[in-house]
Amino acid sequence: MITSRDRDDILISTVIRLIKRRAISNLKNVVGKTHSADIARWFPYLRPNEKSILFNLLVEHGQMGGVMSELNREDRNFFLQESDAAVLVDIFHSMPADDVGDILADLPEEKTQQLLKLIKGKTSEDVEQLLQFQEKTAGYIMTPNFLALTEETTAAAATEQIRELADIEMVFYVYVIDHENQLKGVISLRQLVATKPDTPLKDLMTTRVFSVHPGTPQEEVAHVVSRYNLLAVPVIDDSIKLIGIVTIDDVIDVIRDENTEDMLKMAGTGDVNITSKSILKNTRARLPWLLASFVGGLIAVYVIGIFEVQLDRLAALAAFIPIVIGMGGNIGTQSSTIVVRGLATGEIDLKETWKVLWREIATGASLGCVYGILLGTFAKFRFSKVEIGGLEFAWEFPIVVALAICVNMLIAATIGTLIPMFFKRMQVDPAIATGPFVTTSIDVFGILTYFTIAQLMLF
Amino acid sequence: MITSRDRDDILISTVIRLIKRRAISNLKNVVGKTHSADIARWFPYLRPNEKSILFNLLVEHGQMGGVMSELNREDRNFFLQESDAAVLVDIFHSMPADDVGDILADLPEEKTQQLLKLIKGKTSEDVEQLLQFQEKTAGYIMTPNFLALTEETTAAAATEQIRELADIEMVFYVYVIDHENQLKGVISLRQLVATKPDTPLKDLMTTRVFSVHPGTPQEEVAHVVSRYNLLAVPVIDDSIKLIGIVTIDDVIDVIRDENTEDMLKMAGTGDVNITSKSILKNTRARLPWLLASFVGGLIAVYVIGIFEVQLDRLAALAAFIPIVIGMGGNIGTQSSTIVVRGLATGEIDLKETWKVLWREIATGASLGCVYGILLGTFAKFRFSKVEIGGLEFAWEFPIVVALAICVNMLIAATIGTLIPMFFKRMQVDPAIATGPFVTTSIDVFGILTYFTIAQLMLF
Repeated sequence: MITSRDRDDILISTVIRLIKRRAISNLKNVVGKTHSADIARWFPYLRPNEKSILFNLLVEHGQMGGVMSELNREDRNFFLQESDAAVLVDIFHSMPADDVGDILADLPEEKTQQLLKLIKGKTSEDVEQLLQFQEKTAGYIMTPNFLALTEETTAAAATEQIRELADIEMVFYVYVIDHENQLKGVISLRQLVATKPDTPLKDLMTTRVFSVHPGTPQEEVAHVVSRYNLLAVPVIDDSIKLIGIVTIDDVIDVIRDENTEDMLKMAGTGDVNITSKSILKNTRARLPWLLASFVGGLIAVYVIGIFEVQLDRLAALAAFIPIVIGMGGNIGTQSSTIVVRGLATGEIDLKETWKVLWREIATGASLGCVYGILLGTFAKFRFSKVEIGGLEFAWEFPIVVALAICVNMLIAATIGTLIPMFFKRMQVDPAIATGPFVTTSIDVFGILTYFTIAQLMLF
Repeated sequence: MITSRDRDDILISTVIRLIKRRAISNLKNVVGKTHSADIARWFPYLRPNEKSILFNLLVEHGQMGGVMSELNREDRNFFLQESDAAVLVDIFHSMPADDVGDILADLPEEKTQQLLKLIKGKTSEDVEQLLQFQEKTAGYIMTPNFLALTEETTAAAATEQIRELADIEMVFYVYVIDHENQLKGVISLRQLVATKPDTPLKDLMTTRVFSVHPGTPQEEVAHVVSRYNLLAVPVIDDSIKLIGIVTIDDVIDVIRDENTEDMLKMAGTGDVNITSKSILKNTRARLPWLLASFVGGLIAVYVIGIFEVQLDRLAALAAFIPIVIGMGGNIGTQSSTIVVRGLATGEIDLKETWKVLWREIATGASLGCVYGILLGTFAKFRFSKVEIGGLEFAWEFPIVVALAICVNMLIAATIGTLIPMFFKRMQVDPAIATGPFVTTSIDVFGILTYFTIAQLMLF
């Protein structure tokens, strides 16, 4: 079976061949038949001079606007640097204002102002309006292009309006406003089609409209849209004036981005850019997150130092350090991931803290017992007896490691559950705290528990 | 500012109070004004007898169908167990076939067959058709309710058809088919509205339709919908017959579920249910994943055993085991998470293996140098000199730990990059391999590297 990935591969190699042979008219043909989102995916496979050829062709062909919205940052910057301001401005005029805003926000302030001056008319106003809102809010991701009509408009007149619109990408809803631009209701395109032509919108509209504010975080916008199965959500300001809408295609991007962000935060990679090739940027983003783990490691050096005498007398103790730490770290990661993800999707609520905590503690205890018994048995086979200062211990050492694993897994599950819950309560993103914090504190607790148990039973 | 979460909280406490006071008519009022998705979220806060009261009210009110689709598994099972088959069948008739299929697939085979017999007519056929497809495929998540018309239909006739449809939830597209049900093209509702009434559909339709097969994995369906900004994608069988559509609201659920699955796999939690309260199920799901880490830990016991003599002579060696392992584990997790997420979103392609590997190796080397120097300096302050068999070493020990961190972080970044890439190439889900595999192999490699360097420089 040919998958869509295979088809992509075939197309990409064809395109590369055509560009190499400078077969521009064939290339035009392929470009004309391909979706912008697919064309944008060719660029990472091209050399700089090949990129330029394709960009020129897309500009001539009037297809660059669509492709621009879908390009990755690297290729987009390549194009922005290569192109004249006049060409860019033309392209920006053919793009939705929210996509233009997104690109401009990424440029240095100077360059943004320069381009904004060149982009004239409605697009410029729209973009400037968007740029005033904070990144990752409804105001920032909304589009100011929507269809809003007054309550007295008839269904027929509304249909006529839709016919005349050209620059609105996706119309699903007609918003109904009063003379002060205040949002009064909403009608789906389907309702509009299915009604008598002379009905005024006010008799058709649903007055219970789900809406968001420009300052609403994009994550919450995504929640509203997905929870109520909407295709778009209106953005209203404090005086209930309709200022934009967020459409579902942008919400899907938000969900993907938020998930990526969460995963990277949980792995403690900082604000890393997955596609970036810069080693310096990569190193700089990841360095501080490793610091937590480094400091934890130094604390471990001191903790183990306290028990240097015991280690000197029984070197076998050292051999079990990695497994005690490792099992704790793993179950801690399990618990914290379950909690972080549950909090993010709303499946776990802070009100359920005790319920979740109880489940995780009980699970930690059960798993701890299972692996404790296994490790104890292993230790008994590996070291049938240990000798400390002339005394022989037949059973104490296996019991020490068994207890250490069991107690440590229990503690790890507890910490793994509580840290994200605590951060959530403090209104810090739980994902941020999970990775380095949990593993490091579990390492230190684990070592302390292990050596304390050993101290009590063997020395 | 009142967030939507605050509003939820206020509403929930009101509802609980009304149920406690048995204020059924007030409760009816609140229920009538609330979206099904919100009502579904009240149940986790109710006691069993309160749940029953609310369920009864929803059934009487004819609102149970909408709420059912949104309930979590636990509350849904509570309701399914409590209700008569006749009541259930009524509710199923009011629900979209894909939601009914989803619920039935979750029940024991017997119960499913029993209910299917009771559900008659079109719903039953539709559901049976869906149930024949594998979970997590397009066939399984599609809805068989869509609007398909022949090429000769005029725009006016199509509009008339839309007017008459009642049971299709979301109409965005009209699909155009020939007399053999083969998919020929598609028209958006907006295009239909914006055209002359007597135009036949074949003159309006786009013939380049993005479609999927019933066996297409749901993840790929989500890719197609989000890549091409579609609101729905048609599902066609091998003879190009249109058999269903997957709508964007279901795609959003797919994206969320796939992301949850990926995160849980990466944390090595197995097929755990975030909301489940069963400790036994939780333990059973997580046990096997911890085994990888357990076996890795046992190998570590042996590896350290090889160097028992060295440990006996220099106990300080043991103190640095956790930090060497920890830093390696952390940078390995960073690399593997970046790669797994990049592969999942398509930002990283297998063709770029060498490019990504080079970046990760270089980043690992840089970070390794930074932390190596830091740890060496720390070791020099902590142990200004070490004594082995009567000989004093002033600089060798700090150099050993510095080198160990540096080499280990480099190896860890490499392993963390290569393992998910390798699994992807072998067509195994990379997320599954990342957690326990990477950490365990890094632990073992890290210890081996550390002691080998120590052996070479100190003994």
